[in-house]
Amino acid sequence: MPDDGCVFCAIARGRSEASVVFEDEWVIAFMDLMPVTPGHLLVIPKAHAEGLEDLREDVGVRVWTVAHRLGRALRLSGLRCEGVNLFLADGEAAFQEVFHVHLHVFPRFKGDPFRIEADWQVRERHLLDETAAAVRGGITALGAAGGSGPRT
Amino acid sequence: MPDDGCVFCAIARGRSEASVVFEDEWVIAFMDLMPVTPGHLLVIPKAHAEGLEDLREDVGVRVWTVAHRLGRALRLSGLRCEGVNLFLADGEAAFQEVFHVHLHVFPRFKGDPFRIEADWQVRERHLLDETAAAVRGGITALGAAGGSGPRT
Ligand SMILES: [Zn+2]
Ligand SMILES: [Zn+2]
Repeated sequence: MPDDGCVFCAIARGRSEASVVFEDEWVIAFMDLMPVTPGHLLVIPKAHAEGLEDLREDVGVRVWTVAHRLGRALRLSGLRCEGVNLFLADGEAAFQEVFHVHLHVFPRFKGDPFRIEADWQVRERHLLDETAAAVRGGITALGAAGGSGPRT
Repeated sequence: MPDDGCVFCAIARGRSEASVVFEDEWVIAFMDLMPVTPGHLLVIPKAHAEGLEDLREDVGVRVWTVAHRLGRALRLSGLRCEGVNLFLADGEAAFQEVFHVHLHVFPRFKGDPFRIEADWQVRERHLLDETAAAVRGGITALGAAGGSGPRT
């Protein structure tokens, strides 16, 4: 379902300027306007999907496969690339800003400006086991909802 | 090729404790020992691969597909989950710490401790076009190297 107000749909339909590196029937990959590092790419499905919930699984696989190859291509591009990050934000709480699902692929190098912060502490096994049980409950609920749990 | 010193290979072979939420023939998903938020998961291939370069494409697709479903399952798990991030670090410069490729999947919520920082600025089109040309060169080189560029 195309979204007429969506800036990424506009790019996917060739109605908005973008520095495209790859496209096929399902996905398009182009340079992020505000790159973390030079070479920062976004891979998006051409068909509008907001996030993981409404992204078709087969289209998601194509987004991933192109991102995997682009991550490898970055190392051969001549751009500074000592490492690669893939990042996806699903939902405003996860820092999603454009609500057309997109997978970031960006080169990294020593001294680049990208940083992540969190309150990393080793958790006790019983806490990890409790959250694992909750996740398994979610997997079951997902299977019941649509038959698409990881076990299928 | 199994790596005898690898902590994730040990988990994949059942030789090391982990709070597992899913496994099949190719991948295993378990709780991160130092979660960014409760519910933080890692999805790994069972066969040792260090990063994107030596990860088999079909196995990578399975890692992605399970991560996609787990991201959806987190929202049904009862754990606090207003959003989801997927994150992959390929190489030390990209913050990889365990050199067995792993895709992070973690729930997010308002006020959680995860932050990212970068020097975000809109770049001029000619700079984006230049980097796009470099990336397309990398895609061509990748295709020449192994016939696995995004165009195949
Ligand atoms: Zn859209
Ligand atoms: Zn390993």
